[in-house]
Amino acid sequence: MSQGEDLWKRAKRLIPGGSMLLSKRSEMYLPAGWPAYFDHTDGCQVWDLDGNRFLDLGFMGVGTNILGYSHPKVDNAVRSAVDKGNLSTLNAPEEVYLAEALVELHPWAEMARFARSGGEACAIAVRIGRAASGRDKVAFCGYHGWHDWYLAANLGEDDSLDGHLIPGLEPNGVPRALQGTSMPFQYNDLAGLTDLLDASPDIGVIYMEPQRSTPPEPGFLEGVRQLATSRGIVLIFDECTSGFRRTLGGLHMHYGVEPDIATFGKTLGNGYAITAVIGRESVMQAAQSTFISSTFWTERIGPTAALAALEVMRQEDAPHRVHQIGSDVQERWTSIAGDLGMSINTGGLPALANFTLTGRDALTIKTFVTAQMLERGYLAGPNLYASIAHTPQILDDYYAAIQPVFEQIASHDDNELLESLPHGTAQSGFRRLT
Amino acid sequence: MSQGEDLWKRAKRLIPGGSMLLSKRSEMYLPAGWPAYFDHTDGCQVWDLDGNRFLDLGFMGVGTNILGYSHPKVDNAVRSAVDKGNLSTLNAPEEVYLAEALVELHPWAEMARFARSGGEACAIAVRIGRAASGRDKVAFCGYHGWHDWYLAANLGEDDSLDGHLIPGLEPNGVPRALQGTSMPFQYNDLAGLTDLLDASPDIGVIYMEPQRSTPPEPGFLEGVRQLATSRGIVLIFDECTSGFRRTLGGLHMHYGVEPDIATFGKTLGNGYAITAVIGRESVMQAAQSTFISSTFWTERIGPTAALAALEVMRQEDAPHRVHQIGSDVQERWTSIAGDLGMSINTGGLPALANFTLTGRDALTIKTFVTAQMLERGYLAGPNLYASIAHTPQILDDYYAAIQPVFEQIASHDDNELLESLPHGTAQSGFRRLT
Repeated sequence: MSQGEDLWKRAKRLIPGGSMLLSKRSEMYLPAGWPAYFDHTDGCQVWDLDGNRFLDLGFMGVGTNILGYSHPKVDNAVRSAVDKGNLSTLNAPEEVYLAEALVELHPWAEMARFARSGGEACAIAVRIGRAASGRDKVAFCGYHGWHDWYLAANLGEDDSLDGHLIPGLEPNGVPRALQGTSMPFQYNDLAGLTDLLDASPDIGVIYMEPQRSTPPEPGFLEGVRQLATSRGIVLIFDECTSGFRRTLGGLHMHYGVEPDIATFGKTLGNGYAITAVIGRESVMQAAQSTFISSTFWTERIGPTAALAALEVMRQEDAPHRVHQIGSDVQERWTSIAGDLGMSINTGGLPALANFTLTGRDALTIKTFVTAQMLERGYLAGPNLYASIAHTPQILDDYYAAIQPVFEQIASHDDNELLESLPHGTAQSGFRRLT
Repeated sequence: MSQGEDLWKRAKRLIPGGSMLLSKRSEMYLPAGWPAYFDHTDGCQVWDLDGNRFLDLGFMGVGTNILGYSHPKVDNAVRSAVDKGNLSTLNAPEEVYLAEALVELHPWAEMARFARSGGEACAIAVRIGRAASGRDKVAFCGYHGWHDWYLAANLGEDDSLDGHLIPGLEPNGVPRALQGTSMPFQYNDLAGLTDLLDASPDIGVIYMEPQRSTPPEPGFLEGVRQLATSRGIVLIFDECTSGFRRTLGGLHMHYGVEPDIATFGKTLGNGYAITAVIGRESVMQAAQSTFISSTFWTERIGPTAALAALEVMRQEDAPHRVHQIGSDVQERWTSIAGDLGMSINTGGLPALANFTLTGRDALTIKTFVTAQMLERGYLAGPNLYASIAHTPQILDDYYAAIQPVFEQIASHDDNELLESLPHGTAQSGFRRLT
């Protein structure tokens, strides 16, 4: 057993779930044999605890590192923050510079607050939205973290129905009093959202990702904006995942629709913990009428990393490049599969590309691809979160590596693939509302 | 105007409240003239943006840095985390080592989860406590952060009563459906807690600091423990503030009373963002039945800093030393005031010492001391959060500096002191429930 597998076994005895992030559990990748832990990184290379080197053509930090791992300019900025001191009784000036940078990139926004995780940023945004609108209920679509306000949507009419709405996001421990406070709508269903708002005039917040898998249909985002404006509802775009993957800023800028609040995480600090809530002054000032405060939100590394990452993203034109890389990968998957006579669907934001094979069992395919690619030295499955560290040469090597894997899939049915997986399939994640 | 004051003015236009932490707002210290931002730190020295050097004999990062600022061993560990890479698709092994270290220090606990802010740690603990007990309501005393579950206690019967319970913690934007889900009790009032539990059998969690200002009366903590055990209630000790300030671990170890869950923050990483939830396996396993997950909880700096800080705390006997330093400071304040004929009360955990002068206006005294000490090169008021960087020489200098300030207070009444403060008094914080 590798050192990583051994440590993972220890972790599961010490840490409920083994990891702090569902998407970093070994069982989400492979039921056995996943390296689990890293020693060090560089570009898109990851070395495990046994000294094996892998190329990450998969999740790239679950979407954090669009500039690649261990980017020297970002890391040097962080080193200087450590040299100067991370925290004191006085504030770190970098947080003000970061607020200036983000509102400059988003001219509709005037104010910012920062946190250190995406769930926190979403909880802050909802608190401000509820305080600003004076109404408690939230209409949402998509995924927005682990906090009570969001998981409340998964409280059923009674215990036996808990969890039916978004399988995998169990709401145990969320107060039942919150049942009915967060109500889902379907992406691209403007009529459904209108009906929901008509039925619940106490909705004060619309919370959504500007895009997850499917692009917005013409008029959809504009229609949501109009509904929010006409009814005094605070419109929040969760850009924790989508931000900086197409334009230098929120994806909403690409679509030309402006929210009242936007949240950022993931890419903002290229692998350092920093998340942001930006918004219109009229809405953000509601934060003054409620209590939102935490000691570690004042540390220096977060905003320092974000300032450096923003500068590199601009210099490297990173958002456009990862969009292009992801589009190319989707195209290549499609052509490889097509040449083998398989029907493939590619989805996701191009910079967060994924594929499914029509008529095949998704978990079997995911596990088979992951296992085969791991043997070939890759952390990779049916997803590719693009990074500028994914150079043309690295991508060419990746296409060459995945070609025989697709060939095996084409020449074997799911049961045959499953027989080659002695420990069965990986676990599935939660289902998203899109 | 200093660069710091100028930047603070810009901050207030860009960031609601100006800072991410209520206790780092300039107006909490001085209505004008506070340096607001730091350039760099060393030991208990802080340099502002204009190159002025101050000695921090006040809040030491609002309680984060008991090893002093810029501790070389902790900072070097963080530098090595940056060198190796902060985050990847695989996990950082240090989180497992930190879980092992914390459960080793607390033999009653078997499992741990980590977050990056204290509010998050408390919200995770409450979620697990509710899920494990199967009951939604919480009995609490003390302060536990900005999240909905806690501020719900400040929702009055109607809007006009909102905020009356814990002035300063405004609950706007907290869903009114949560009214009545968090119910306060007074510290050291076992009969009151018993009555509360009798009246509300749906209380599943007791959430408290093992000690804030006043020490526990004999039998109080033991009585709380017994009540929780006999009624199947999960007992959570919030050690975010009290942890590692008397023993190497939670303050509850000093009192010999074991909770089911404990949370840590503040001192754990000596100024780097890391917070922890530890608990008994039977209770912590409830985390598996609910969704608690965040990307940045997997970064490497947090647990790396905590492991280094724990090692230095042990080597330096830091928890005992800060307890002793704080006790000495309380004693010296008392003797200085007594020699001047003033009646003084010292309070707080000794390592988080504070004083009030009987019959004097607390805000006037706080502002006057802060202003006078700032002129003398100190960040200091009627509080001293002890650090091992507070050497005997630094403390002797501090006593010499504060002596004439006490003399002025003794020879002038509050109105005269107020006249010397052209901008009036500082703002007060929120009132704690103790």
